[in-house]
Amino acid sequence: MPDVVSFGEVMVRLAPPLFRRIEQARSFDVEIGGAELNTAVGLVRLGRSVEWVGALPANPLGESVRNRAREVGVGTTHVKFSTEGRCGLYFLEFGAAPRAGSILYDRAGSSFALSKPGDFDWPAIFAGVRWFHVTGITPALSAGCAASTLEALKAAHDGGLGTSLDLNYRSKLWGIAEAGRTLGELLPHVDLLIASTADAEQLFGIVGSNFAEVAKQFHGRFGVQHVAGVVRETPLVWRNRFGAVGYSAGAFHETVTYEVEIVDRLGAGDAFAAGVIHGLLDGDFAKGLHYGAALGALKHTVPGDLPLVALDEVEAVLAGQGLRIRR
Amino acid sequence: MPDVVSFGEVMVRLAPPLFRRIEQARSFDVEIGGAELNTAVGLVRLGRSVEWVGALPANPLGESVRNRAREVGVGTTHVKFSTEGRCGLYFLEFGAAPRAGSILYDRAGSSFALSKPGDFDWPAIFAGVRWFHVTGITPALSAGCAASTLEALKAAHDGGLGTSLDLNYRSKLWGIAEAGRTLGELLPHVDLLIASTADAEQLFGIVGSNFAEVAKQFHGRFGVQHVAGVVRETPLVWRNRFGAVGYSAGAFHETVTYEVEIVDRLGAGDAFAAGVIHGLLDGDFAKGLHYGAALGALKHTVPGDLPLVALDEVEAVLAGQGLRIRR
Amino acid sequence: MPDVVSFGEVMVRLAPPLFRRIEQARSFDVEIGGAELNTAVGLVRLGRSVEWVGALPANPLGESVRNRAREVGVGTTHVKFSTEGRCGLYFLEFGAAPRAGSILYDRAGSSFALSKPGDFDWPAIFAGVRWFHVTGITPALSAGCAASTLEALKAAHDGGLGTSLDLNYRSKLWGIAEAGRTLGELLPHVDLLIASTADAEQLFGIVGSNFAEVAKQFHGRFGVQHVAGVVRETPLVWRNRFGAVGYSAGAFHETVTYEVEIVDRLGAGDAFAAGVIHGLLDGDFAKGLHYGAALGALKHTVPGDLPLVALDEVEAVLAGQGLRIRR
Amino acid sequence: MPDVVSFGEVMVRLAPPLFRRIEQARSFDVEIGGAELNTAVGLVRLGRSVEWVGALPANPLGESVRNRAREVGVGTTHVKFSTEGRCGLYFLEFGAAPRAGSILYDRAGSSFALSKPGDFDWPAIFAGVRWFHVTGITPALSAGCAASTLEALKAAHDGGLGTSLDLNYRSKLWGIAEAGRTLGELLPHVDLLIASTADAEQLFGIVGSNFAEVAKQFHGRFGVQHVAGVVRETPLVWRNRFGAVGYSAGAFHETVTYEVEIVDRLGAGDAFAAGVIHGLLDGDFAKGLHYGAALGALKHTVPGDLPLVALDEVEAVLAGQGLRIRR
Amino acid sequence: MPDVVSFGEVMVRLAPPLFRRIEQARSFDVEIGGAELNTAVGLVRLGRSVEWVGALPANPLGESVRNRAREVGVGTTHVKFSTEGRCGLYFLEFGAAPRAGSILYDRAGSSFALSKPGDFDWPAIFAGVRWFHVTGITPALSAGCAASTLEALKAAHDGGLGTSLDLNYRSKLWGIAEAGRTLGELLPHVDLLIASTADAEQLFGIVGSNFAEVAKQFHGRFGVQHVAGVVRETPLVWRNRFGAVGYSAGAFHETVTYEVEIVDRLGAGDAFAAGVIHGLLDGDFAKGLHYGAALGALKHTVPGDLPLVALDEVEAVLAGQGLRIRR
Amino acid sequence: MPDVVSFGEVMVRLAPPLFRRIEQARSFDVEIGGAELNTAVGLVRLGRSVEWVGALPANPLGESVRNRAREVGVGTTHVKFSTEGRCGLYFLEFGAAPRAGSILYDRAGSSFALSKPGDFDWPAIFAGVRWFHVTGITPALSAGCAASTLEALKAAHDGGLGTSLDLNYRSKLWGIAEAGRTLGELLPHVDLLIASTADAEQLFGIVGSNFAEVAKQFHGRFGVQHVAGVVRETPLVWRNRFGAVGYSAGAFHETVTYEVEIVDRLGAGDAFAAGVIHGLLDGDFAKGLHYGAALGALKHTVPGDLPLVALDEVEAVLAGQGLRIRR
Repeated sequence: MPDVVSFGEVMVRLAPPLFRRIEQARSFDVEIGGAELNTAVGLVRLGRSVEWVGALPANPLGESVRNRAREVGVGTTHVKFSTEGRCGLYFLEFGAAPRAGSILYDRAGSSFALSKPGDFDWPAIFAGVRWFHVTGITPALSAGCAASTLEALKAAHDGGLGTSLDLNYRSKLWGIAEAGRTLGELLPHVDLLIASTADAEQLFGIVGSNFAEVAKQFHGRFGVQHVAGVVRETPLVWRNRFGAVGYSAGAFHETVTYEVEIVDRLGAGDAFAAGVIHGLLDGDFAKGLHYGAALGALKHTVPGDLPLVALDEVEAVLAGQGLRIRR
Repeated sequence: MPDVVSFGEVMVRLAPPLFRRIEQARSFDVEIGGAELNTAVGLVRLGRSVEWVGALPANPLGESVRNRAREVGVGTTHVKFSTEGRCGLYFLEFGAAPRAGSILYDRAGSSFALSKPGDFDWPAIFAGVRWFHVTGITPALSAGCAASTLEALKAAHDGGLGTSLDLNYRSKLWGIAEAGRTLGELLPHVDLLIASTADAEQLFGIVGSNFAEVAKQFHGRFGVQHVAGVVRETPLVWRNRFGAVGYSAGAFHETVTYEVEIVDRLGAGDAFAAGVIHGLLDGDFAKGLHYGAALGALKHTVPGDLPLVALDEVEAVLAGQGLRIRR
Repeated sequence: MPDVVSFGEVMVRLAPPLFRRIEQARSFDVEIGGAELNTAVGLVRLGRSVEWVGALPANPLGESVRNRAREVGVGTTHVKFSTEGRCGLYFLEFGAAPRAGSILYDRAGSSFALSKPGDFDWPAIFAGVRWFHVTGITPALSAGCAASTLEALKAAHDGGLGTSLDLNYRSKLWGIAEAGRTLGELLPHVDLLIASTADAEQLFGIVGSNFAEVAKQFHGRFGVQHVAGVVRETPLVWRNRFGAVGYSAGAFHETVTYEVEIVDRLGAGDAFAAGVIHGLLDGDFAKGLHYGAALGALKHTVPGDLPLVALDEVEAVLAGQGLRIRR
Repeated sequence: MPDVVSFGEVMVRLAPPLFRRIEQARSFDVEIGGAELNTAVGLVRLGRSVEWVGALPANPLGESVRNRAREVGVGTTHVKFSTEGRCGLYFLEFGAAPRAGSILYDRAGSSFALSKPGDFDWPAIFAGVRWFHVTGITPALSAGCAASTLEALKAAHDGGLGTSLDLNYRSKLWGIAEAGRTLGELLPHVDLLIASTADAEQLFGIVGSNFAEVAKQFHGRFGVQHVAGVVRETPLVWRNRFGAVGYSAGAFHETVTYEVEIVDRLGAGDAFAAGVIHGLLDGDFAKGLHYGAALGALKHTVPGDLPLVALDEVEAVLAGQGLRIRR
Repeated sequence: MPDVVSFGEVMVRLAPPLFRRIEQARSFDVEIGGAELNTAVGLVRLGRSVEWVGALPANPLGESVRNRAREVGVGTTHVKFSTEGRCGLYFLEFGAAPRAGSILYDRAGSSFALSKPGDFDWPAIFAGVRWFHVTGITPALSAGCAASTLEALKAAHDGGLGTSLDLNYRSKLWGIAEAGRTLGELLPHVDLLIASTADAEQLFGIVGSNFAEVAKQFHGRFGVQHVAGVVRETPLVWRNRFGAVGYSAGAFHETVTYEVEIVDRLGAGDAFAAGVIHGLLDGDFAKGLHYGAALGALKHTVPGDLPLVALDEVEAVLAGQGLRIRR
Repeated sequence: MPDVVSFGEVMVRLAPPLFRRIEQARSFDVEIGGAELNTAVGLVRLGRSVEWVGALPANPLGESVRNRAREVGVGTTHVKFSTEGRCGLYFLEFGAAPRAGSILYDRAGSSFALSKPGDFDWPAIFAGVRWFHVTGITPALSAGCAASTLEALKAAHDGGLGTSLDLNYRSKLWGIAEAGRTLGELLPHVDLLIASTADAEQLFGIVGSNFAEVAKQFHGRFGVQHVAGVVRETPLVWRNRFGAVGYSAGAFHETVTYEVEIVDRLGAGDAFAAGVIHGLLDGDFAKGLHYGAALGALKHTVPGDLPLVALDEVEAVLAGQGLRIRR
């Protein structure tokens, strides 16, 4: 039985290599990505067993998504293969200052977006599981997905699992009002919230002079136990600074800020979430924040959305190991 | 003003290189393809000026389709860019005996499928034009597309343009009954029909002991002047034999059969159509059949769906030039 | 609990792309391969659950072998990760007539070759399992591997599992005398033997005027129930003919011979073995022979050693489906 | 009728990928480039219609240059295809500090260099056109090209078109004395001059304590209305700072300096020229300078010589949009 | 001191991969090739030491040609690096039936074509050497090259070296009359002539009912001792039949005809020449013919122009080894 | 006769492209590398003639290593091809902050490691040679290699050649005690020592407050004439600072520190060694230090381990040339 279950869409990602633009592309590199799978992979890397739950079309694209999740050790027993809908896709263009990278989503009508409550047998899925993770992208995909998310979070929370929600507000998927209302219904079932202060303000009108104050309001209003967020500075596209802040049990925590050279920045926040959950599974929020920041920083160095990093690499970063080649 | 206008969807085609299967793909080669554009390119290669009319999403994928059509000299003045719908895609796996190649379509919800009568100003588009070409794929995409196809064919025929329809029945897109009914309404407005005897039978119940007998019935029932079809033998996947037959003005014609080594078999039938139209623009159906068979045979040797072949190469094949390297 | 367990070495395969020779290689394509894993994958494709048992070094190469087995749905629970030994490699050059393809092995000192009896807990591994498969390559790798093979075959046979051995004599690994003696000790524990008449003669001095006579002698001398073998004709390197023969319960069987266009011929015999085992799991040797021949033929069309073919593709070949593109 | 016409050579560019040196190249990436085409593409991106005029060999290389210009929406109606001469080529090696990038030209004997006055029908080409652009590279290629340049500039200027010349002195093509004399004859027909202070001094002995003083002398001596130039700092090879200065109607203008991460620095100056011309077509030199600096900065982020940037991206840079990924 | 010296131009070869046409090329694969170097490499593979003499530009392209010759063990001591002229190039498109492959030469103005008598110190070059080889391409490149060829052949012949000339008439380089006259002046200094009957007729009016009769006339008219030629049948582009005929000392010889699957047919004739010279260095023309045919057949299986084949592979072909994978 | 001989193992290097991790690799880029060959190539680039001495397996991998050494102009006359042992390999993962690059060696059992005294005829190899170079890696590979190293250094030193040793302590190959003892026996035969202060301390207990003090102790204890070392700062993975220090004849020298953008940092230290030896061959240690630092800095910009840099590029860096593109 897995330690953790996550729930969300995984898409095939298509990106022109070598900084080519989509209009220049004569080939696309193929990766897979989805916030909840990314987090699942991070947890596997940190030593946890994880099942990813989602829906995919019963065709070679859907099968290849399942296979690649399986390749990196994520369980896929409960993934639903459907003859309805298509495989969600997204196209990625890498950027360089002064041009930011950009994403073109092509996920409408996916098998996952067509899924609905009842498609997933949550009691069976959660048997023996300790933690459930989801992001704010899943309820944004369709009414069915929103209902499933609420169904799952309730089942998990009521079943004694720890639960986490990464807000991840995406303006291309839904409006602020709808997002705030839908996500607000989820929050009472959430133990760990990952959020930015910007999302806190625009979705819930929660404002504070610092992260702790914002977190306290989430605690007060929704009963959220732990709140965490990443700190990212973007002076350039190929180089960022990355760290984390968090608030739990009345205490504010923050990590060092890592200088990161960016091979692929996607999934860094999801990797961070994996670290925090990892810590909480050990009952140690502060540890989780530090592991999350290090895993998130390391994620920037790996092509694709998945944090394909070894535990000893995370710990080397935490130990301040230098940058000379290891041989 | 162009000689020819064609109307239909163009998709982005994604194919794993080097005979990899989709599940093995770590990259996809990117081409574009669509039956009516393929024919348009063939006509450009034979020296005609051609406009392709269609609809594309107003995003980098849609723009790249337009650009690649433009690259090979096809006019795109009347292409409609839409903020609705997505870019049609298809995934291609190359085969090898005893496994046939296969295509996975992902074209539902495309901007083209969402188009409808009135989106295209046919009188303006047809001003000064001599020929209009469409295939049976276009009306299969949606009711709107079917209505546009009829609208266009009527406008063309009534306006004195020659018209051609390549039946191209695709069972994944619609049923036989609907296809037969819809295509049957188009046929009275068609001068040149490209069809297989199999499609003739299943769509219209037209049976004959040979191609000429089938063609005569199309003439008798729908008033079609010219009927042409390809002859393909597939003893292997990498090697086929390819030729053509046709019937016009009471006479049956057939071409030599070419032995083809197959780099990419897609679009060969569309290239054939270009040859036939080319001949008819010169008032010479037999010439068209021969040029079409040669252009179609040559298409098999070119990666992608487009017949990127030079006129002198077509004529070298017609002249029976050998296969020694040209230097 | 899996249906089938197989036991053997899996190597990383490095091959220059596009028919380049090793001395021309500026890159190698990376695949994995090993006879017993190849067969395991074939069985998964036919719908069986399979565990592959072996040993790998605890480094990124070893992990990637495990991951890629996992990707295609093979269980790896019992794979032993070792800090001793290296990852077996082999280098492949594709050929073209009149030059055959060739393999350069670099597997000495591998973690698997260093494994020995006791490294694998066969009773636990075989719990609930119906079939055990191994090839003559495994005992050829080292004395430890030979002892493990005997240990495993005995445990399986005694435990009521069906067992299969594919002789696969490799002259680069050991001499005929040693091979004959070692393999001869295994045969009494074998239900299904896959062998060529050439191996039968050189290893055991078994000669017959046809395959059935050879098979009868294996039955008489070693008690083997079922004997099967592939039929391959190699008029060219890119095109072979491939079929199978077998003998079981007093009856000789043979399949049609498939014309195959060769993308990658490695693993075809292993795919054949999967088909035969699949049939025997259903109690139907003849079915197994036909599925094996079809799966083996299809394997030639897939890059890499693994038979990444769908069950419906196997059945399409068995049904004599043609070679036109499927769309 | 196009807004703008530019005139100059376009070459095929061959560059080893991934920072390989020419001696290491086992493949070359293929792009096209030429200062005047680069500027034409920039203008198309900013919304102008543009024709590029030049000469190419009537072979697949020449045709592919024409096709790729056509692909990005530049008109090629007046391009001359010639059976004389070859296709100009250049080989590019990307650099990294402390090694600068470098270019190896192989353009001698090109069809363009063999062209001469009379090859281009300027009155017909300029009908309805508002602006003509050329660089100092064109007259450097041959006496025939120099004569054509003068012929064209005169025809444009006399015909009421705005005209621009980017000095672009290239010491590998001609000496300072000849360049100064030839370019000096062109300047009286030029409205907008793009020049560096270094070129001003070495070609014309024009020295000033700042850009405005230099510009005033160009105005005084040759009657040039507008003078503009780029500002580039090169602390590293992969990171530069890029901005612009200009002088027009008695006023000095300068832009912000952009920090640029360099994917491909070629064509940045040509993109800048497009921006300035774009502004002047709107009668607004300052706007042109700002658009030029932003477009030039963005060009560094795109592989190849062409500024494949969208107008909204230029305006996002001008608006100071940050570098977070757009999704 | 080398056994053999060859003299001729070596070019950089640029070919789009994967059967793409030049107009589709986004990359070119880079090889080197030149008839006389190809033969030199063949001789090295057969165990001879060889120097290739030619001229190259003193730039990275020229250096890379020299380096790649050096890589495969050909001596380059006497190669002249020149600051005049460019590096000869050629562009290759692979074909597929019914479209032949084709070559676009871009070699005008090369450093080699600009070379002239006196540039090479033949007495020093030939010291201790046993054989000199050249083809009819070298004198076709320029008057200087023709004079150098005559100078070299005379010096070799007079110095007691064996000499060989492969006629290799190329109509794109010169006319029949000039070729016949120039090559006719070389023939009195030639011991081994490699020629087709077609070239014999069109260049020298030598006609015969079979190869032996043609060869006898070369012997009678020019004193040529040995005449050899390849036999090639081209039913398809990807599959040819290849063998050889020869006449020496009053005897006619012919080899078996090999069925070849073609990866890259360029250089097969040059490889054949290497075999014949190899035999004559052992005083055995018939052996040379057989080695040449086998080496030439094998050349078709290797990418690039160079016969990168091992001696044991040649001998395996001569011994009739089959096409099963070697492992 | 060469100026310099170096002695050591050369391996095939396999690296996933584009920052992929080994577990993500679907292809490996193939380079060769070995400290002593890297230095040999640097010396060739600076104008010296060099022989590299080593051992390789008699198979295509071994031959390709020899060929690529030959390609860049290094002599390979004395390389021993052996039927024993395999080709040493190493796998490289490129890093990005905060993850360092890393190397996975797979060199056990190589033909070179199996070599022993007597395999190389040092008197013949050293005839006419001026300098011998080796590193501390060679004796670490096996007892046989250690003995050969001592044998060679003694023969060289006694024969009047200058000698150099780059300590290059590799903890994965041997322990500190064994390394200190073995290397200590070599030092009396060494003229130029390249070492870091860290290695000086851990291997020999030599500590000093600065490089000069350390160097003096090497001089005093072992009679080493010249001591040099690189200075490297690693604030990031893609950007380092690189310079050198040295001590000779009582004087301390240091170079400027270069800001380097890193394409491939491997072999920079070996390139530095080439510069120092180059200077000493001219009797000028300070020159050597400066050339070494510049060559080492430039090495970072070249893919692979070999310093494929031109002498004029080294001198441009020494002259402080800027970073604008050279055209």
